[in-house]
Amino acid sequence: MSIKHIISHIKPDKQELYEAAQSRLDSLTKPPGSLGRLEEFARKLVTITGETMPELDKKVIFTFAGDHGIADEGVSAFPKEVTRQMVFNFLRGGAGINVLARHANADVVVIDIGVDFDFNPSSPPFNKAGMGGLFVSRKVIRGTKNMRHGPAMTQEEAIRCIEVGINLAEDYILKGYKIFGAGEMGIANTTPSSAIAAVLTGKSVSEVTGRGTGIGDKALRKKIKVIEDAISINKPDPSDPIDVLSKVGGAEIGGIAGLIIGAASHSVPVVIDGFISTAGALIAYCLEPNTKDYMFAAHNSVEIGHKAMLDKIGLKPVLDLNLRLGEGTGAALAMLIIEAGLKIYKEMATFGEAGVSEKAQK
Amino acid sequence: MSIKHIISHIKPDKQELYEAAQSRLDSLTKPPGSLGRLEEFARKLVTITGETMPELDKKVIFTFAGDHGIADEGVSAFPKEVTRQMVFNFLRGGAGINVLARHANADVVVIDIGVDFDFNPSSPPFNKAGMGGLFVSRKVIRGTKNMRHGPAMTQEEAIRCIEVGINLAEDYILKGYKIFGAGEMGIANTTPSSAIAAVLTGKSVSEVTGRGTGIGDKALRKKIKVIEDAISINKPDPSDPIDVLSKVGGAEIGGIAGLIIGAASHSVPVVIDGFISTAGALIAYCLEPNTKDYMFAAHNSVEIGHKAMLDKIGLKPVLDLNLRLGEGTGAALAMLIIEAGLKIYKEMATFGEAGVSEKAQK
Repeated sequence: MSIKHIISHIKPDKQELYEAAQSRLDSLTKPPGSLGRLEEFARKLVTITGETMPELDKKVIFTFAGDHGIADEGVSAFPKEVTRQMVFNFLRGGAGINVLARHANADVVVIDIGVDFDFNPSSPPFNKAGMGGLFVSRKVIRGTKNMRHGPAMTQEEAIRCIEVGINLAEDYILKGYKIFGAGEMGIANTTPSSAIAAVLTGKSVSEVTGRGTGIGDKALRKKIKVIEDAISINKPDPSDPIDVLSKVGGAEIGGIAGLIIGAASHSVPVVIDGFISTAGALIAYCLEPNTKDYMFAAHNSVEIGHKAMLDKIGLKPVLDLNLRLGEGTGAALAMLIIEAGLKIYKEMATFGEAGVSEKAQK
Repeated sequence: MSIKHIISHIKPDKQELYEAAQSRLDSLTKPPGSLGRLEEFARKLVTITGETMPELDKKVIFTFAGDHGIADEGVSAFPKEVTRQMVFNFLRGGAGINVLARHANADVVVIDIGVDFDFNPSSPPFNKAGMGGLFVSRKVIRGTKNMRHGPAMTQEEAIRCIEVGINLAEDYILKGYKIFGAGEMGIANTTPSSAIAAVLTGKSVSEVTGRGTGIGDKALRKKIKVIEDAISINKPDPSDPIDVLSKVGGAEIGGIAGLIIGAASHSVPVVIDGFISTAGALIAYCLEPNTKDYMFAAHNSVEIGHKAMLDKIGLKPVLDLNLRLGEGTGAALAMLIIEAGLKIYKEMATFGEAGVSEKAQK
């Protein structure tokens, strides 16, 4: 099925269930509204899923991995081989996302959608069950091209990346997963994310470009110049998100956009991790604004361009912990808080059940 | 032992371990500092406990319950009997704190330190093991007196409340608990908390008085007047925290102050819940500023006086979720995030272990 066809299936969330969810929340033994955003998360899970008693028992974080030709310009503090090295780390269970997904009782699925390396899925750690993530090979490209000299990908490759995300969403819904986290790994990928942020929010490149994994002032100035060059040579069309994704994006960003589209078309909630994942979310939102109803923004990233993208979509982050790691780490943490909201909604006693007096005065 | 003697045992945290903790954090497979406040929480647990590999396997939330004579002035949206009704709800497992403590894998201990009701600990739900909290009877008073007409408690009663908290801390350290959460239940207890906030921060009553469980404008104006009257008639001495606690405080607030003092004297971390718990923390801090090193502020409460107290102590909250329920609910949630920081610190692979290249450029 074409992306257009899938997108046509994305409806707004079921606001008609809002009042029923609110009325249950107000019957629980607490002052009305006193659990603040936990109550918001519970209501949102009800309107997303269309179920008055939603389940979040099976959770998964997708960590999309891809390389970037723009890394050749020296825009990252880390060398390019770290992308594939971190894939191995994810599979062995030693990365931040493994630790936090275990803490949140979520599975980790690592998708090679664009790494510039040939993994051998028949040798360890790929074929080993254990503490680490599951490896899924969906390679569309071996890294993007250097976008300072031309498009990062072809339009066809960009579309295939989105389709990978849609198909993964459908696979994992069939496997019984109830909530997705969107994360990523790719050395230099704050660079295409800042480019997407600039093009789709209309902000200047310097307003949405930060230090990524930790570059200094000189490298930051260069990174801004590189992004400005990439935009000026490629002229991505702000009204065409797939044009933007292909010219100044990345494979993992396209995969995340597709994951969100696939999830939204099946009424499944997605927790968006940080800056790069939000670039993917912004592509999905610009393709179909109703996708927003199915998104939770996990946290407020240190990257300065993050807020502009969240504001454009209209999302308020769950957490604010000065995170800037990516991988899906913030999404795993936020899932714990979102799930807390659902448990409040489902497990607390009502005033009637508990024999507690209701509010006496206004 | 006297409170003075216990306090003399409270030392600053072990800053000499800071560098060792930082150096381990920087060896992990992530850009330095990229896990932001999670790294801060891990370092703080190391310097609090004095252990390079701290454990948080046994967690407990203490919910101190007490009544308030000032409720007679109509300062709360709920009737006074809700305090005892909620104690029953805590023991049956149906309250917000039960749900969130189960989510955080923490036990709940409910302390009758000042409820205006005679519980019968030999009848259900008190003698029933189950989903609910454990009941501990440490009654010092049957509610405070109406502080608009005189002191809420005698100095002796206030000291006994603090001692209850200290003794509980010591009991639960012996039982093997590694981290405490401080929470409370008591209809009208934002009123003494605002009074304490005003006296100990020097702010005006109207700057630190909010809507509690949800009163309207008229009742809020009355609440402010009641607190101003209580301060003016009792003249609590801002340089004497026990004088403040006895004249305009409450039993549960004293218990929380004592819990923190007991925990700090044994190098055990305490997660402070919201507005009322922070009033207890402020009493502890004013008695001995080193107690601050052992505190985590769980969240940023909706109550307007909360920030003034956190600023006075020097704490930055972990979460900001518009909560205003109390009971320890924010503390339970924050424990999950603090524990995530510790797991990152203990479980992530180092660059060496994972064969990942370190930072190449600044």
